[in-house]
Amino acid sequence: MTTPPLRVAAVVFPGFEVLDLFGPIEMLWMPKDVFPISIVAERRGEVASAQGVKVIADYAFSEATEFDIVLVPGGRGTRTEVSNPVILDWLRLVEPRARFVASICTGSALLAKAGLLDGQRATSNKNAFDWVVTQGPHVHWVREARWIEDGKYFTSSGVSAGMDMALGLIERILGRESSAQVARWAEYTWHSDSTQDPFA
Amino acid sequence: MTTPPLRVAAVVFPGFEVLDLFGPIEMLWMPKDVFPISIVAERRGEVASAQGVKVIADYAFSEATEFDIVLVPGGRGTRTEVSNPVILDWLRLVEPRARFVASICTGSALLAKAGLLDGQRATSNKNAFDWVVTQGPHVHWVREARWIEDGKYFTSSGVSAGMDMALGLIERILGRESSAQVARWAEYTWHSDSTQDPFA
Repeated sequence: MTTPPLRVAAVVFPGFEVLDLFGPIEMLWMPKDVFPISIVAERRGEVASAQGVKVIADYAFSEATEFDIVLVPGGRGTRTEVSNPVILDWLRLVEPRARFVASICTGSALLAKAGLLDGQRATSNKNAFDWVVTQGPHVHWVREARWIEDGKYFTSSGVSAGMDMALGLIERILGRESSAQVARWAEYTWHSDSTQDPFA
Repeated sequence: MTTPPLRVAAVVFPGFEVLDLFGPIEMLWMPKDVFPISIVAERRGEVASAQGVKVIADYAFSEATEFDIVLVPGGRGTRTEVSNPVILDWLRLVEPRARFVASICTGSALLAKAGLLDGQRATSNKNAFDWVVTQGPHVHWVREARWIEDGKYFTSSGVSAGMDMALGLIERILGRESSAQVARWAEYTWHSDSTQDPFA
């Protein structure tokens, strides 16, 4: 049973992909006061995305460890972060208390490298799939999926798929009527069938 | 004739909508080095979005006035900004040199209030349409459109429609093959017909 509000940690790191993160943030923000969002990073302050736009991290990993939902974007920065023990240790630390752990695009490489997806079904984006797979040899990688739900893990395909997955997460928590309403507010044509992957 | 690179001003103000801005930024970033993007605001530094996430403005309006493309998001902050002469004057100042001026969602209220859309066809999002119309009584408002192209002006419907419009802008500048490629990279199902509006 999940009772709102559900605190969301939106993770950022140098070279994160803007749409990976801001698509889901937009969707989660729409059911008012249900999903309070914090931006969390290795250090507080400015973090530059892959697109060059800089965002402000509200909290450092060391000062924020209790969240109901953890949201991990992809982007070229994941290539560096898979070797960063600070982010991997934090993911391992917050995972047991989180009700849901969600990744977009190559964000699943970070969850896999942290060992969190071992034995789970998961997906990632198309262009980097072969690299992502090497980060988690014990993960059941699924190449054709808009997103995958396996227990508390939600992993999405590339970039835009994160919005579809976020709506799937809203459906899981608040029901189909709420997720459909959010899609209408966002004027977003929701690909609501997670198994239908137009880019496979 | 438009020759890359085309410098993009992505405008932010307190209460801007994150997906309005970051959807188009993601799309414009993908054709490498064609659309260098600057975040521009009334003042340099932190600007909080409607969703609470803070971004960094690279330039103040007073120090950045030459752009090829101006991108104006919506969000609840537009209700305040339509009465802010600083942003309206800046829009009037940069418009003559800009090859394209694009707005997402209620961003068209700002262009309208600045007088830039007088005599032009334009659209906006569904939920705030009646308010937006009052900001530009001499604009030919179109209620049913995913986005509208009228000369150098591109105006989109609500939130997610900005991504479709951005791909339309990429098509206009770089051709259909490039815009279709960007949509594939972003794993985004492009609504490429601007007249088809699933939310009208």
